[in-house]
Amino acid sequence: MTAQRDYDALVQRGLSLDLTRGKPSPRQLDLSDDLLKLPTSYRAADGTDGRNYGNLQGLAELRELFAPLLQVPAGQLVVGGNASLALMHDTVVHALLSPVPGAERRWVEEPEITFLCPVPGYDRHFTICERLGIKMVPVPMTADGPDMDVVERLVAGDASVKGMWCVPKYSNPTGAVYSDETVRRLAAMPTAAPDFRIFWDNAYAVHHLTDSPVELADLLALAVEAGNPDRVFVYASTSKVTLAGSGVSFFGSSPANVEWFLRNTAKQSIGPDKINQLRHVEFLRDPAGVEAHMRKHAALIGPKFELVDKVLSERLGGLASWTSPKGGYFISLEVPHAAEVVAKAKAAGIALTPAGATHPYGKDPEDRTIRIAPTYPELEELEQAIEGLAVCVRLVAEKHGVA
Amino acid sequence: MTAQRDYDALVQRGLSLDLTRGKPSPRQLDLSDDLLKLPTSYRAADGTDGRNYGNLQGLAELRELFAPLLQVPAGQLVVGGNASLALMHDTVVHALLSPVPGAERRWVEEPEITFLCPVPGYDRHFTICERLGIKMVPVPMTADGPDMDVVERLVAGDASVKGMWCVPKYSNPTGAVYSDETVRRLAAMPTAAPDFRIFWDNAYAVHHLTDSPVELADLLALAVEAGNPDRVFVYASTSKVTLAGSGVSFFGSSPANVEWFLRNTAKQSIGPDKINQLRHVEFLRDPAGVEAHMRKHAALIGPKFELVDKVLSERLGGLASWTSPKGGYFISLEVPHAAEVVAKAKAAGIALTPAGATHPYGKDPEDRTIRIAPTYPELEELEQAIEGLAVCVRLVAEKHGVA
Repeated sequence: MTAQRDYDALVQRGLSLDLTRGKPSPRQLDLSDDLLKLPTSYRAADGTDGRNYGNLQGLAELRELFAPLLQVPAGQLVVGGNASLALMHDTVVHALLSPVPGAERRWVEEPEITFLCPVPGYDRHFTICERLGIKMVPVPMTADGPDMDVVERLVAGDASVKGMWCVPKYSNPTGAVYSDETVRRLAAMPTAAPDFRIFWDNAYAVHHLTDSPVELADLLALAVEAGNPDRVFVYASTSKVTLAGSGVSFFGSSPANVEWFLRNTAKQSIGPDKINQLRHVEFLRDPAGVEAHMRKHAALIGPKFELVDKVLSERLGGLASWTSPKGGYFISLEVPHAAEVVAKAKAAGIALTPAGATHPYGKDPEDRTIRIAPTYPELEELEQAIEGLAVCVRLVAEKHGVA
Repeated sequence: MTAQRDYDALVQRGLSLDLTRGKPSPRQLDLSDDLLKLPTSYRAADGTDGRNYGNLQGLAELRELFAPLLQVPAGQLVVGGNASLALMHDTVVHALLSPVPGAERRWVEEPEITFLCPVPGYDRHFTICERLGIKMVPVPMTADGPDMDVVERLVAGDASVKGMWCVPKYSNPTGAVYSDETVRRLAAMPTAAPDFRIFWDNAYAVHHLTDSPVELADLLALAVEAGNPDRVFVYASTSKVTLAGSGVSFFGSSPANVEWFLRNTAKQSIGPDKINQLRHVEFLRDPAGVEAHMRKHAALIGPKFELVDKVLSERLGGLASWTSPKGGYFISLEVPHAAEVVAKAKAAGIALTPAGATHPYGKDPEDRTIRIAPTYPELEELEQAIEGLAVCVRLVAEKHGVA
């Protein structure tokens, strides 16, 4: 019973470590400390006073800066507050309460609304659906994105399928990047619902861990080409570029969708925080400035991903599998009896995202996926946490006769 | 036909003046320019890193600073983003989609939802209702607030009446302050709907124009006393304290309502912009700091209100009536044929809020109310605009045989 002895020793150490959420570390936040003294001027590029009300769409200079990075024309981008999650939540609310372009009625009047949820996926997408009464249907993720045979069948056969969540690049939590073929099929697939929308949460668009950034196909452009111009809602933010709580967010879509979004947002706000937008323009300067800044993040968190991979390889080779992402914020660990492993880790002072959180309704039918968020702790703590996690995996495996 | 001659001369001058919105002037915004270099530290009072995710309710030090000013215990305050309008909009959305405490069902499942709207009132309250399919019933305003006999009759007799908009202090646009008696009756009145809510938009809580600030009775406390603890939603912001587009907003209510609000907001956001909260704490310091800052605003805009009163008295004595507020951002001018006056002013290059905007559905049944927003223009332009407006009033009066 080596595993039990190791586990008892782990508990003895009285650790208090947290791998639950994808938070930047203090050293990453330090990279943006100049933001706290900016902007040096409150004037926007067009001369308007950024301190006053107005400009619901957001400053043109910030939209132009991010347009090439997000693959959305600047005229079709909207700048939001500090959270792209709010833009996603509010888009669903707008669709529930005001018909999206092409819809026959408001979604709230439909007998049932279904969203496809590639799994494992992002728990906060699922809680938006759960809170708003939207049925979720899981779709398996592959290394190239969601299983498109399943997706095509579901959207073609069921008019209640109005939406689909996607984290297309360095996906949360597997790190997978949607292949060109996957993106092309998403753009072109026939759907039973005329008002079907893809919620394209490009949260990690510029969050590379390697020197060879992965290219993502341009879904918005491909959807236009395929005759489905209004299919795509694009989201992104600088929460993991500048400051997690004080960044700016983006919504991008077709001209008709942007008009619909702004028409609804106009009832909710007189305009965004343009001083924070100016702060970001002055700090990041241009797309190359964003890329240079992101290389500093990669230098800080790349070694953390490498460390997790190294410890898991040394301790769990053959017992478990895990992903080795080229970007993003997460590693997905696949083990038998995931919930039991998470419980054992918790008892040993290592907090992990609850098992099941990566699936709709918190239910992982195979009880296999554990999301590891390695960015926040420094290397020493991270090593302790992953070593401890490996002990828990081995303990549970031994108990169930796997090892 | 003196009036026609004066109007022709006015048109000849080719003015381009804007009295449409209640915007602070650039000189008012200059008062908060230090904000652009703050905060000097990203640490909250409890030591947490204000740059990262989290703290949905907002920093305790900012809630404590505003609690006495807003008559809400700090523990029952929530800090939002840059717009209290968004908090109001989102509260209605939350109530539509998740039952408020005491409700039998979500409002979206009710056959009809009605809000009482004291008139003249704030157009953006009305557009929230119109966008969300909520029926509006106007209630006449008096110098002491809404006509409470009418309000009490409507809320007692109709269970579809779920809400009521109030700007209780220096009301938009009349400047009226709800009397103690009005507030007491609002707190205590029996309502047919168990989930009736007062949307208490205390937008001008600290926005005094005189040295003798008007005291507003404490609705939240009175509602508790009257056995209706969950009746009140309080809103406020620093949009007209610090920067119009870059302030912080507040939601305050009973513990049960705050729990409900945060539970829903948790699906929408991982937390507010706490750096902007720290910026505000460092800049405003304490309630006395807010009050001292507001006296600087009063010194800038008080003379504008006096000027409007002087010009209207000189030019329109006997022809029209208007309010002389002791705070807030607006003057309400009552004239016959208001829409025609606004059209004439527009043709002469003087933009006014559309006639009717102060009423639900943009319809002022008596066609009498013109909202004057005197804060943005400097004195010389303001004088030109009000002199011009007076010419238009006299022209229309003469045309209709009033003068």
